[in-house]
This record gives sequence, structure tokens and C-alpha cells, in this order.
Amino acid sequence: MDAWDQLTARLNELDALAGAGAALEWDQQCYMPPGAAASRGVQNALLSKLHHERFVAPEVGGWLDTLEAADLDATRRAAVTQLRRRYRRATVVPSRLVEALAHARSEGFAAWVDAKGKDDFSLFEGPLQRLLDLVREQAALYADGAAHPYDGLLEDYDPGSTVAELRPMFTRLASELNRLLDALAPLAHPEGTVPPVDEDGLRRLSDRLLRDLGFDLDRGRLDLAEHPFTTNLGVGDVRLTTHLHPENLLATLGGTIHECGHGLYEQGLPDHLAGTWLNRAAGMGLHESQSRFWENFIGRSLPFCRYLVPRMQGIWPTLRLTPEQLYAAANRVERSLIRIFADEATYNLHIIVRFQLELGVLEGRLQARDLPEAWAEGYRQVVGVVAPSARQGVLQDVHWSSGLFGYFPSYTIGNLYAASLGARLEEEFPDLWDQVERGEFGAILAWLRRNVHQKGASADAPVIFREVVGERDPVQDLVDHLWRRQGTLYGARRIV
Amino acid sequence: MDAWDQLTARLNELDALAGAGAALEWDQQCYMPPGAAASRGVQNALLSKLHHERFVAPEVGGWLDTLEAADLDATRRAAVTQLRRRYRRATVVPSRLVEALAHARSEGFAAWVDAKGKDDFSLFEGPLQRLLDLVREQAALYADGAAHPYDGLLEDYDPGSTVAELRPMFTRLASELNRLLDALAPLAHPEGTVPPVDEDGLRRLSDRLLRDLGFDLDRGRLDLAEHPFTTNLGVGDVRLTTHLHPENLLATLGGTIHECGHGLYEQGLPDHLAGTWLNRAAGMGLHESQSRFWENFIGRSLPFCRYLVPRMQGIWPTLRLTPEQLYAAANRVERSLIRIFADEATYNLHIIVRFQLELGVLEGRLQARDLPEAWAEGYRQVVGVVAPSARQGVLQDVHWSSGLFGYFPSYTIGNLYAASLGARLEEEFPDLWDQVERGEFGAILAWLRRNVHQKGASADAPVIFREVVGERDPVQDLVDHLWRRQGTLYGARRIV
Repeated sequence: MDAWDQLTARLNELDALAGAGAALEWDQQCYMPPGAAASRGVQNALLSKLHHERFVAPEVGGWLDTLEAADLDATRRAAVTQLRRRYRRATVVPSRLVEALAHARSEGFAAWVDAKGKDDFSLFEGPLQRLLDLVREQAALYADGAAHPYDGLLEDYDPGSTVAELRPMFTRLASELNRLLDALAPLAHPEGTVPPVDEDGLRRLSDRLLRDLGFDLDRGRLDLAEHPFTTNLGVGDVRLTTHLHPENLLATLGGTIHECGHGLYEQGLPDHLAGTWLNRAAGMGLHESQSRFWENFIGRSLPFCRYLVPRMQGIWPTLRLTPEQLYAAANRVERSLIRIFADEATYNLHIIVRFQLELGVLEGRLQARDLPEAWAEGYRQVVGVVAPSARQGVLQDVHWSSGLFGYFPSYTIGNLYAASLGARLEEEFPDLWDQVERGEFGAILAWLRRNVHQKGASADAPVIFREVVGERDPVQDLVDHLWRRQGTLYGARRIV
Repeated sequence: MDAWDQLTARLNELDALAGAGAALEWDQQCYMPPGAAASRGVQNALLSKLHHERFVAPEVGGWLDTLEAADLDATRRAAVTQLRRRYRRATVVPSRLVEALAHARSEGFAAWVDAKGKDDFSLFEGPLQRLLDLVREQAALYADGAAHPYDGLLEDYDPGSTVAELRPMFTRLASELNRLLDALAPLAHPEGTVPPVDEDGLRRLSDRLLRDLGFDLDRGRLDLAEHPFTTNLGVGDVRLTTHLHPENLLATLGGTIHECGHGLYEQGLPDHLAGTWLNRAAGMGLHESQSRFWENFIGRSLPFCRYLVPRMQGIWPTLRLTPEQLYAAANRVERSLIRIFADEATYNLHIIVRFQLELGVLEGRLQARDLPEAWAEGYRQVVGVVAPSARQGVLQDVHWSSGLFGYFPSYTIGNLYAASLGARLEEEFPDLWDQVERGEFGAILAWLRRNVHQKGASADAPVIFREVVGERDPVQDLVDHLWRRQGTLYGARRIV
């Protein structure tokens, strides 16, 4: 066997291990009985360990050395380039630091749960500081000559994104969003409330949506979970989850469509490149662009409400709701405290605060003890609200407690990408909104497949994005979209 | 670390791999979308390979050598003895033979599906012959001085059972069962049919049964599968499955109680011995005794029907059914062609035919081409019926196509053990049937826990069985039980 065959055999083996691990985690969220927690923890840890050992093994480095010196076709060349980056990142961190991080994460998570329950940041401060120190150390090893230490962390979630690009873009976005929110603030919320429904109907509505949007239920499925997520267990096996909120139909609807967007991306990846690791998402930002595109750009549009309401009335014949009421309910805007409940516009302000704080941490300007004050100041300046408690403020998200620094920007990168993809689609299909109103999503999906999904990880997300949208300005596209939608709905006047 | 610590660390790792594999297989039967078949196959194969490699590794043999020469307490001594047997069996078969068997199994299974579909044994004959040759070779390596080559195969499923013991016991059982069936044959079936019900109610009835029988739903769960099974994913994680047959309530009831019996055994195993492999079932025969005990001895009794019918009427208020009618329906006896649909008495005759044929194969008296004729002759003599087609005859079971020779006896060993355990329980608790009628199963379960489950694999099943029942004769106990139940129900007169 030559180096390429040996490498792909190993990558297929690693994919099988990762798929088995994903199956265990899916089961843990969806079905596992509580008494299994300890034994499942051991199983997860073993599969992760085997995966890591078999990836960082010296022979993998040797195969990459050989292939880098060889004459390869474009696909293999791209695969080797991407793999070298991953291999370097997996091997550059010494095992002492890997273990210290694992320990600090589990300590951090437990402390965060406790601190949030008791609404007392001081219980989290020590463990968080230990995490910050280790994450800085890790980032320094990752960054290796990058312009900003944060860039090294970004690459874990969004390869190709840099602080140099994100910072000015986010600053401009914050300012534009605040202009919109200021314009809407004095205006009355549009009328529209959605009555409570039953769980059985919500489940049927979710199944119907998946089929209509083009999710292949022979190559995936939908289950219920406390916190909806999507995972890929292997070729032909994409698992979506949703949560049934009988009192809050919009939450279930948004959740199902959001996860469906992730799942459509996963199902559209280039399976024929299995064994190269090019058959993967190009990054979390691009992933999030797919979920947000379907959830927000399509799913909260008036034409989509016109498609959906008759289907809802097929399930609940006595439901009294017009498409216009559903549309109004789905597009309420309000400066808010909690990220996960925020509307489409305000949401990005929550992310921008976190991004700025994480930059401060990585630049060494902020320590754990500074974060409550910095959080309050960031919210005051960027979102325009101040949390009355740590639980609704600096303790609200799980991410930092698990050592996830560099992840938050993906959410807003996703919203920005989605806005430009939507604008491109409107150019591509002049009858786009008629298609949506008729419940015909096939042409949209085929376009995304061709321009985004099928490219897998053959290039970084920013490159793929530029190939599709050309010179469009995503900040402008997102802000224009929000003015057209929420601005119009509230009857606000845009001063340009 | 000394040899013991290293060994138990490895065994815990192997258990984690096996648990992950069991989770994948559970998912495959219960939830996996069809498009995932290929990738799941790769995942299963990898986990099996890793498990095998890490068990047969030379260092494991070295640790066993060291421990065999050391001074150990009784538990460690028992663990080392059992592990040496397993290690020897895992290492004695050369990898050439392992691979040939794996290939012959997948070829055999495909040919069997095809042959059964077309009702044509000749399509299966060649692949079956190849399997027989390899299984004989394997059995010879396993047996190593055993009295009969079949003993080597038996040890895979029922360590401690031998042909020398089983053959006379099964011969006597066949003759006694035929006396019972001859006595019942001229008599009218007792009256009793169970009306169709709905799936939702069947599901609720199954859940209720699990709770009442003592299955811990915090440490296990029940799902639906085409072919019900039970599997253990790790400490605190026993998964049962059942199938909802709205037209055949008895089939669902029997399936749920049967799997619950397996699950109660798994939940009762000595968790504190994790890492020694003594926290396992002592064999498939003893496992089957637990499922059959609950399904048949308890579940088909009149007191159990008296407990159950009011609960059924709680679910289906308009259900017209008396406990006596349910009891009659659950205990119809008939000489039949298909093993899996056979009644409690006839079932064992199906097994005895297969046992005799397997002995012929292992002794070299029977080749694949002889099996249809030998099957027909065996059924004529032992069961008293002749199949009109290969599909209802020699092709009915999947076992041989997957290379499973030596497994069938476990079913009847289970029935025999269950009968003696039941007889011992009647001595132990003079009010046993009053407890059952009141739906109180706690004392029975506690007795099984203490006398069977908690012993794990610390001794072979025949030893554990003897410790519990003393000098009882299981053939006599099973035959007496059937005369008392079916004989009485049909009004037959027993001539002793």
C-alpha cells in the first residue's frame, strides 16, 4: 500500500470511531437511562482516546511528509493541506496540557452548574481562571505566528476567519443593528400570538416540515432532546433532534427548521470524498449559515407563513391563526438579556459582547474576576440592557465553562453568511418567494447543495462564501434584510 | 501497577468497547435509518476488531501467567480461571480460520436469505457445507481433549454443559413430552380467544408490566424492535425491546415478559465485580431460564392472568375477557412446524431435533446435503409432523447460516432450569401463587437475585443451578409442570 492508501484507511477508521462516539452521545441526549451516566462516560472517554492516539501517531505524520513531497491531483493536494493543519494542531499541544484542560473543563462545568444554580459568580471564578490560563497557553501554541492569539482558537471552529477581519465587521454590525433597534423601540409590537397546541401535533408538524424542506428520512431521522442538536453518525446517518413546546409553537418550529438546516448541510456533503476528510463541513460559521438561512431567512418570512398556516390547520383544524399573525409573532424585536431567546436582530449584539470579552481574555486584558463587570459594561454599551443577576448575565451560557473560547463568533458569522446567500438567491430566482409560498424548496436546496454543501471542506469557509456571493457585503445584506423585514413590519422609517 | 491492576484496567477497557458496540447494535435494531447500513457495518467491524486485538494481546496472557502463579483470594482466583478459558478460546483459533469463518458466515447468511425466499435448499447447500467444515475445524481446536467435539462449541454458549449430560436428558424429555402430547391430542382445545387491541395500549401495558415485575427503568429502558431482544450497554444500562402486535396481544405480552426476564438477570448481576468479567451471565442456558421462568412459569399461570386482566381492563375498559379465557388462550398445545411459534411443551421437541442433527454434523455423520432428509426424519420421529416445504423445515431458522452451532440447546436448558427453579420457589414460598395473583413479584425477584443473578459468572451455570435446586431432576420438574398446567387445562389423565 502506498502512503495515500494507508492514510485514507486510517482516516476511515478514525471516522468509524468518531461515528461510534457520535452515536453514544446522540443516545445520551435522546434515550440513555440516568443510571448509565458513569459507564457511558468511560465509553466516551475511551473512544476519544483511541481516536486521538490513532490520529497523532507518528506514521500519520510520515504519510503526510511523503504525500507533501509527491505529485498529487487537486483533490488529494487539498486533502493533504487540510490534514496537515489538523495534524499540526492535534500534535502541537503536549499531553500534559491536554490532560490539564480536560480536568479544568470538568471542574469548570461542575462549578458553573453550581454557580448558576446559586446565582453566585464567585463560585465559578477560580475554576474559570484556571481555564483561561490553560486556554491562553493552548492558543499561543495554536497561533504560531498568527496576527492575533485568538486566531488560533478561531481555527478550531471557523478555519480561515481572523480577528483582523471579524473585529471591524462586528463593530460596524453592532452600530447598524443599534440604529435599527433605536428606530423600532418607540413603535408598537405588531399584533400576533400563537395559541398553545398539543405535542402529538407538534411532532407531526415537525415531520412534515422535514419532508417538505427535503431532509432525507431514509438517511437520517428526527428524535426528541432537551436541547436540540444535530449530529452525523456516518455516511447516510444524520440525526436531528427537536424539543416539543406545546405552549410555544414558535420555539419548536424554529428549533426543528434550524436543525433541519444543519442536517441538510450534512446530508449534502460530498460522500464520495469519504476517507479524505474533505467530506466535512468547512466550519461552524458556514454550518450555522445553513441553519439560520432556513430558520430565519426562509422560516420567518411571510411567504413561508402562508405556506405553513394551512398545513398547521390540517393538523389542528380549529386553530385560529392567519399567516400575518404568525409572521408578526415570529418577528418581534426587543433588546433582551438572554442570548438563546433573542430575536434575529438583537441576537448578534449578544455575540458581539462575548467576542469582545474573549478578545480581552486572549489579549490578557481581562481575568476571570473582571468578567462580571466587563460583561455588564459590554451589555450596557452594545445591547443596551443590564442583567439584574449573574444568572441572567455572565453565567447564562455553558460555553466558557467547557473551555469553548472562539466558538461564539460562528453564530454571527452564520447570520452574515446566510444574509448574503439569501440575497444571492433572490437574484438567482426572481420567483424565490413564490416558490416558498407554494412550499417548493427543491430549487433552493439544489442551489445550496451545488454552491455550498458539495464543496465540503475542500476550501475554508470564507473562500467558499466568496465563490458563491462574489463581492457582496454581508453586513449590508444582513442589515438590509432586517430593515426590510422587521423595519417594515413595525412601520419604521430608515434614514440612510 | 501489578498484574491484577493491569488486567482489570484492560478488562474495563474491553467492556467499554463492548458496551459501545452493543449501543451501535441496539440503535441498528431500534432507530437507525436504512441508509446507514454500510457505515454502521464498518463501525461494528472496527469495534469488534479492536476488542479482539486488545484481548488476545500477548500481555494479557502474561498477566494471566503471573496471576496463576500468585496467591489470590477466591474471587480473583475464580476470575483468573474463567479468563484463562476465554483467553485460550480466543487465541487457539488461527486468524486464517477466523477470517474464513467470517467470510463463510456472511456468504452463508446471504445464501440462506435467498434460499428461504425461494424455498430452495439447494441454494444454501454449498455455503452451508463450507460453514460445516470450518465449524468442525473450530470445534476440534476448542474441544482439546473433551469427550465430544460438540462440547467445545457448547462452551461458547453454555460453559459447563456437555453432550454426555445433555443427550440422555434430552432423550428422556422427548419421550415424556410425547406422552403428554399424545394424551392431549384427542382432547378439545380449551375455549379462550383474546380480541385485538390498539398499539398505544399495548405499549402502556408493557410499561406497566416492567414496573410491576421490578425492572428498574432508571437503569434501563424499553424500546420497539422488529425482533425483540435484550442487550446490556454497560453498568446501569440494560435495554429491552418488544414488538407491538395489535392482532396478537399474547405475542406482545410473551415477548415483553420474556425480555424483562433477561433484563432482570442483567440488572441483578454483581456490578461490584466490574473489571473481573465475573459480573456476567453464567451462560445462555441460565439466561434463558430467567426469561422462560417469567414468560412461562409465572406469565402463563392462572394467578398471573388474574393479576393481569384487571390491569388490562384499566387500559381497555370495554375489553371482554376473563382470566380463565386468557389462561386458556396462553396455554394451547399443538404439534407444530415452526419453532418460534411453538407452545411451551412442543417447543423443546423442536430443539431436540436440532440438537441431534448438530451432533450428527459434528460427529461427521451428516453433511449439508443430508440435512433436509435428516430434518424430515427427525421431525417425523421427535415432533410427529413433517414440513411441506424447506422454508417451514430445514430453512426456518437463521442460526446455522450464521455459523451458530451449539446454541440451540440453551433454549431447552433454559426451560429445564426454569422448571426446577419454579419448583424450588413453590417449596420456598407456600403462598407463591397468592403473591403472583396480588401482583407482588418482589420476593420472587429477591430470591432469584440472591440465588442466581448475584452469582454472575463466578461458577458455571450447572454448578449455580445445583447450588440452588439441590438434587432435583429438571426433566421431571418440567414434565410435572406441563402436566399440571396443560394436562389439567385439557382434562387429560396422566398415566404414571
